[in-house]
Amino acid sequence: MGKSNLELVKECDRFPYYQDDPAYYTEHLKNHHFFKVTGCDAVLGYILNSVIQKFHWPEDCWAIDSENRTVTLVTAPDATAEQRSELVARTLAEAVKRDTFEILRGWRDELYPVYGPNGEFLLEMERSASPLFGIVSYGVHSTCYVEDADGMRLWIPRRSRTKQTYPGMLDNSVAGGMSSNEHPFECLVREAREEASLPEEVTRANAVAAGCVTYFYVRGPKAGGETDLAQPEVEYIFDVKVDADVVLKPGDSEVEQFHLLSVEETKKALANGEFKPNCAVVLIDFFIRHGILTAEDEPDYLEILARIHRRLEFPTASHATN
Amino acid sequence: MGKSNLELVKECDRFPYYQDDPAYYTEHLKNHHFFKVTGCDAVLGYILNSVIQKFHWPEDCWAIDSENRTVTLVTAPDATAEQRSELVARTLAEAVKRDTFEILRGWRDELYPVYGPNGEFLLEMERSASPLFGIVSYGVHSTCYVEDADGMRLWIPRRSRTKQTYPGMLDNSVAGGMSSNEHPFECLVREAREEASLPEEVTRANAVAAGCVTYFYVRGPKAGGETDLAQPEVEYIFDVKVDADVVLKPGDSEVEQFHLLSVEETKKALANGEFKPNCAVVLIDFFIRHGILTAEDEPDYLEILARIHRRLEFPTASHATN
Repeated sequence: MGKSNLELVKECDRFPYYQDDPAYYTEHLKNHHFFKVTGCDAVLGYILNSVIQKFHWPEDCWAIDSENRTVTLVTAPDATAEQRSELVARTLAEAVKRDTFEILRGWRDELYPVYGPNGEFLLEMERSASPLFGIVSYGVHSTCYVEDADGMRLWIPRRSRTKQTYPGMLDNSVAGGMSSNEHPFECLVREAREEASLPEEVTRANAVAAGCVTYFYVRGPKAGGETDLAQPEVEYIFDVKVDADVVLKPGDSEVEQFHLLSVEETKKALANGEFKPNCAVVLIDFFIRHGILTAEDEPDYLEILARIHRRLEFPTASHATN
Repeated sequence: MGKSNLELVKECDRFPYYQDDPAYYTEHLKNHHFFKVTGCDAVLGYILNSVIQKFHWPEDCWAIDSENRTVTLVTAPDATAEQRSELVARTLAEAVKRDTFEILRGWRDELYPVYGPNGEFLLEMERSASPLFGIVSYGVHSTCYVEDADGMRLWIPRRSRTKQTYPGMLDNSVAGGMSSNEHPFECLVREAREEASLPEEVTRANAVAAGCVTYFYVRGPKAGGETDLAQPEVEYIFDVKVDADVVLKPGDSEVEQFHLLSVEETKKALANGEFKPNCAVVLIDFFIRHGILTAEDEPDYLEILARIHRRLEFPTASHATN
């Protein structure tokens, strides 16, 4: 008896819901401080109290209010995103020097954006630090598949066994984090080329945007580094139907090998817990949208659909450019 | 300048969210009592206080607790669904006799189910009464479309101008409420035959389940009857791609006429506010899933996706039969 689809979703969407138990939610929230910046009322992320204690917060740019449980990046009211980012970068550089957090040993040298309630770009920070601040992170996930007389088969990579996070687990065909200034479709094109050796023209011709999944992850031991860090996430979803003669191959050291799995094989690997948690969620969404998993098959259909489209309690990005 | 897609979504998903303003949400909730039944802890619906006052509640089967704001259907702990339904039916028959509620003048003679937290069938009640109790209602909505060298066109019906609710507005190709004991796919097959004259074999061969949309509607004047009634809804979604020679025609008096609209014409009618609110939501979901509305087009992409997959604060149905 393997894992149910709802169990897989719950491994990914782990932060409690107010409506399930208001008292528990309110109590749980007290394990966190609220990340804010001068001049913006919105809470931008949840910082675990233990992180607050370990961090060295330079007093000239951080104000910690223990009563209201806020950590505010203090600047002039008209500070620019560049100025805010510079202050965060300095704080992080000091934490790296002191080796305060295990998670920062996995420094990525990629910048993740933080947005305000009107979609305004507030600041950017090093990717590996984002779970310390509990900010929303953005990525793209796509399912490349073949559908012909032999039925549907999905291109599924296995992560490198030496990868820092989720080593050896199964992944989505193309998946990756979106840095500041990236937009979903162009990010997909880049990741598909880099990670799956998918020619740019194939991605551009075949990729179809199909929504997004959102969930509130809380990091466990397999994520690497400190646990219990809040990690609300948005993954923009693309379906990429390819011809049977298109072959996905590792383009870098992140993937060990790609396999073409039938729907049944993929479902079995899901139930076996072989997929990285958020990849399981993306596949469940894919199966639902394609009528492979229906209300008549899945007892938890409604709960799954609501949880993988969670309304996050933080401002989120707008990528409208057209 | 027409309505934005988010404005259309907000016309449908109207009940406030706790996370947007906890104080306002808590205050707003005080306009309602919680519908419960003996032996089940869950809140099954929100009953507007003005409904509580107008209803004649026979004291032998209803307990009203003004302090905790609950209205409980009181039965023996081992009551059956049939017994509970009978008590509700008696209460409603009395309300009809007294003509207490305008909304009950639209008596449908269809029974809607109420489920408990473990998916157990608790009771059923007359469809037109469901907004009085604020229970979750279930339906199917499908988009029938043609896709060929001329591009994509959608089969869009206009509601009869004499219909009690949303007269003359545009609707989804096939849409209807799910009664007790119905399951999504079979409900779709029935509605497609009855309302759109779609032969059963065409629906069975071409309909693809594609998830559901969920939202918390609050009835306005166009819905007919009392306003401000809570109406949380689940709509199971199906895409039905048909050949260009399949023609949808009204099968009963509910639809005036079907039109085959291009994507651009459909978008324009949406922005003009010509669609019944929940039909707009289903079309926005369709456009997102088909890559017609993308993150690069739509500034409110994330907010829209989360709101049309709202996690309702009531137990919901399980239709698993396979």
